[in-house]
Parts: sequence; C-alpha cells; structure tokens
Amino acid sequence: MSESALLLELIDALRCMPGIGKKSAQRITYYLLQRNRDGARALSRTLLAAMDNIGHCERCRTFSEDTLCTLCQSSKRDKSLLCIVESPADVYIVEEAGFRGMYFVLMGHLSPLDGIGPDDLGLDKLEQILSENEVLEVILATSTTVEGEATAHFISEMVRKRNLRVTRIAHGVPMGGELEFVDSSTLSHAIDGRREL
Amino acid sequence: MSESALLLELIDALRCMPGIGKKSAQRITYYLLQRNRDGARALSRTLLAAMDNIGHCERCRTFSEDTLCTLCQSSKRDKSLLCIVESPADVYIVEEAGFRGMYFVLMGHLSPLDGIGPDDLGLDKLEQILSENEVLEVILATSTTVEGEATAHFISEMVRKRNLRVTRIAHGVPMGGELEFVDSSTLSHAIDGRREL
Repeated sequence: MSESALLLELIDALRCMPGIGKKSAQRITYYLLQRNRDGARALSRTLLAAMDNIGHCERCRTFSEDTLCTLCQSSKRDKSLLCIVESPADVYIVEEAGFRGMYFVLMGHLSPLDGIGPDDLGLDKLEQILSENEVLEVILATSTTVEGEATAHFISEMVRKRNLRVTRIAHGVPMGGELEFVDSSTLSHAIDGRREL
Repeated sequence: MSESALLLELIDALRCMPGIGKKSAQRITYYLLQRNRDGARALSRTLLAAMDNIGHCERCRTFSEDTLCTLCQSSKRDKSLLCIVESPADVYIVEEAGFRGMYFVLMGHLSPLDGIGPDDLGLDKLEQILSENEVLEVILATSTTVEGEATAHFISEMVRKRNLRVTRIAHGVPMGGELEFVDSSTLSHAIDGRREL
C-alpha cells in the first residue's frame, strides 16, 4: 500500500456520488490535493450546509431552505395549472421547458414491492391543495416507466373525482430524433397521439 | 430561478472537481440530497480532513499524513533503485506495475515559461538523497511530453556527475495495442529501442 490512510479514505468517500467510480475518485483526489485545496475546502463547507439546511417545501415538497420554496412563494405563477413530477430534478427540467404553473413533487413513485404507497408520496397534501379550488388542471409528468404510469393513473382517478381537468404530457418521437432510432413502443405512442395539422 | 440558493451554490462548488460539469454537478446534488445525505456528510468531513492533514513526505515529496510516507518508512524496499516521477498519482501507477524500489516525486516538471525551475522540483533534496550513497540506479519515469523529456534530461546530467547508473523507462508500442493505431513518433521510438530476442 503506497497511499496514506486518509487519502484512501477520501477516494472511498468520493464514491458516494453517482457516476464516480474508483478511477475517477482517484483522479479527483490527486487533483484536489495538488491543485485546488481551497476549492475542496469550500466544497466541504457547502456540502455540509446543503445537507443540513435543505429540506422540503411545505406545499409542493420540492427541495427548499425555507418553509415555502421560491416557486410557491411567487405571485407571478399560474396557480390554475398544477404539474405533478416525481423528483425535484424534474421541476428543474420542466422549468427549463418554459412551464410557468405550480408543481407538486411526489419524491418517488408508487411501488408496492418497495413498500411505497400513496401516503409516502404525500397524496394527502395533494388532496388538500386540490381542495383549495385554485387548481383547474392537473398535468401528470411522471416518468414513462411502469411505476410512473401506475402513479399517473392513480392520481388521475383522484383528480377526476373532483371534476377537474387531468392531462398527461405527450409521449412520442423526441425533437431532433430520427425515426429509425426510435423504439417501437415510443413510435406506437406517437401514432396514437397524432394531431391534426 | 426555481432552485434554492444553497442548492445552486452546491452545484457550483462541485465543479471544482475535474471531469464534473454543470449537468453532472446537478445530478450529484439531487442524488445526494434525495438518497445519500449521510454519505455526503461523511464526504464533507473526509474532504476537509484530507485537505488539512495531507502534506508531503519529507524525503520523497509524495502525499503523506506523516513526516515520512509509508514507502520511505518501509524496510522492505530496494533502496538501490530510485524512480523519479512527476506526481503522487504516478507513484501509485508505478507501484501497480510491480516496482519495489524507492521514489522521488518532482511535483511537476521543468517549465521555464511557467517559471518552474530546478528549485521548485526539489532537486536539492534529490542531490541530498543521492549523496547518501544508497542509490545505485536512477530510473527516470517522467512523462513523454516536451517538458517531461527536458526534465529527464536535466536530471540525467545531474545523476551522471555522480557516476551513477541512470535509465529512462522504455517508450514503444503499448501492450495489447495494434500497430495500425500507433502514432509514428511512438513507433519510431519502438524501433530505436528494439531488443534482441
């Protein structure tokens, strides 16, 4: 063993990050020690502060330092549209796409085998938001996996009972995608969901 | 802006690591917050401890928590062989290759344009090690860049004055490499360095 114990410990600790294997962790360790100790110290501080202080928004359940996230606090959003996503990362992606309504973050999807039921997804909180009568349309943007589809179906039933409009984002051929590289299931959805020109 | 300030700060701080761009930093941030806060806290602690406590071995200049690194402290190494490398990461690589002598780490290479001269590479310390008369052969394992070659040349002159054996690691076709993918400069070295079978 040619390396100091602490150095090996750092290589190991870095692997808690997704996409970082042993080789990358080694490269990062040597780079930080040799060229950017100040950056690494700053990262250490910010990492701890973020883990300790970032909780969930009381209303939409996304990550937030405050009781309510910036989106739920904002007065400029369209409160009649509620987009339901699985994770805070999805909020960021939908924002990038230009959506300007409100969000509700499930922090997961229904998965009976893993013991994740409606309560774990905060659906009681969702019921409460819907009961405030501000929302007119619920847009389901859960992922297109089996669990994501099941979750979308479950919530759509819940919303329909209140006679609200409930929609699912379109599934089809991605923009810039060539038809020959699209799988048949996606193409089948694209044909089912065709629109009048 | 849909994200909390601290979350954006963490995404930014993660980018001090090589190979981590904005997308990877975002992915890591969301992953750690959602699934591995304990791992992230441990990383924060280890990162700070490593940056504060890992210094350089007094003898070979590689990274070490102690005054002398484990290799310099070991009694099982062949003290007659001294391998000269550019960085602590290179020590690791040469160890993996099965070398069991001693090391001297330059922590860089001669680069007059960047103001890096012999003093910055600790060559006075190298002189001192050589003067102890334990070393019989100096193996130059600096990289094959212009600066690496120049550094190797400079040190070889230094070692020759003491009438010690000085060698350079072989340059040639990598193992498992097909000839048609090898560049002409490497191939030219491989032909120059051919060996009797």
